[in-house]
Amino acid sequence: MNQLKFSDYEWAMGEALKFAEAAGRKDEVPIGACLIDSQGKVVSGSGNEKESVNDPCGHAEIITLRKSAEILGDWRLEGCTLVVTLEPCLMCMGAMWQSRIKTLVFGAYDPKGGALSLGYDFHKDKRLNHTFDVIGGVKHYETSRLLSQFFRQKRGQYNFKKPN
Amino acid sequence: MNQLKFSDYEWAMGEALKFAEAAGRKDEVPIGACLIDSQGKVVSGSGNEKESVNDPCGHAEIITLRKSAEILGDWRLEGCTLVVTLEPCLMCMGAMWQSRIKTLVFGAYDPKGGALSLGYDFHKDKRLNHTFDVIGGVKHYETSRLLSQFFRQKRGQYNFKKPN
Repeated sequence: MNQLKFSDYEWAMGEALKFAEAAGRKDEVPIGACLIDSQGKVVSGSGNEKESVNDPCGHAEIITLRKSAEILGDWRLEGCTLVVTLEPCLMCMGAMWQSRIKTLVFGAYDPKGGALSLGYDFHKDKRLNHTFDVIGGVKHYETSRLLSQFFRQKRGQYNFKKPN
Repeated sequence: MNQLKFSDYEWAMGEALKFAEAAGRKDEVPIGACLIDSQGKVVSGSGNEKESVNDPCGHAEIITLRKSAEILGDWRLEGCTLVVTLEPCLMCMGAMWQSRIKTLVFGAYDPKGGALSLGYDFHKDKRLNHTFDVIGGVKHYETSRLLSQFFRQKRGQYNFKKPN
């Protein structure tokens, strides 16, 4: 099995960002994910589809994991890396455990809703039947900028500096 | 909004058990779930489909939540109760939080993989944007017997008492 390098993760985050941008254009929260196999090849990817499909589980990570399992013909995504633009929520972290991925790579941290930021480190809970590695903050600037731009537009809030 | 009674939960667990039995006949782990609305009416239900569909997220709870959201035309399942025959895993507990259910009712406890049994009580974590109630052990005997029978058959292990 090949060992992926940090540059592979950065490249894959660029791919995930394309899915995030596409989701934003459909008025979904611009979060994107892709799954790469042990050779660094993209298996599949997706943006958020929660609002457009009315699916409470329509997060980019869940859709990507399900689609990839379908493509590979196995729900066990062993050796694979999930790359996502935002720190995953509890549901998505659980789905990664269930699908037995090797590594999670995420972009921006989510202090309010991110599983790790809230202290739920179950990716390394040895009582569970699978553990996986986590790398956070890859392309942090680009991934968080996309989200903050989206929410600023949604709120109609523009911060103009007043001339002195 | 009507207040459901314990007898409503027991009746709904009977419905979830039918989905569990149907899953077992398809050689899936016999776990079943159904979602009931605030009037106690079943919106939808499902058994496990992880193996047959090759879906890492193919747990009875996730399928039921997604199907119900589709039927109701809204991913917010506010006021609804998810009834499931086994204590949910971390992924499914996360999905219940995401879909904003009112109450989780489960049957058998799962000391090895159940989110609550492992100490992850995020259904009552007030830092999150939604919390929900949990009632465990409803029809505990029937729900756990169905699972232990299935695994005993799978292992080909039958405990015969030797005659003295």
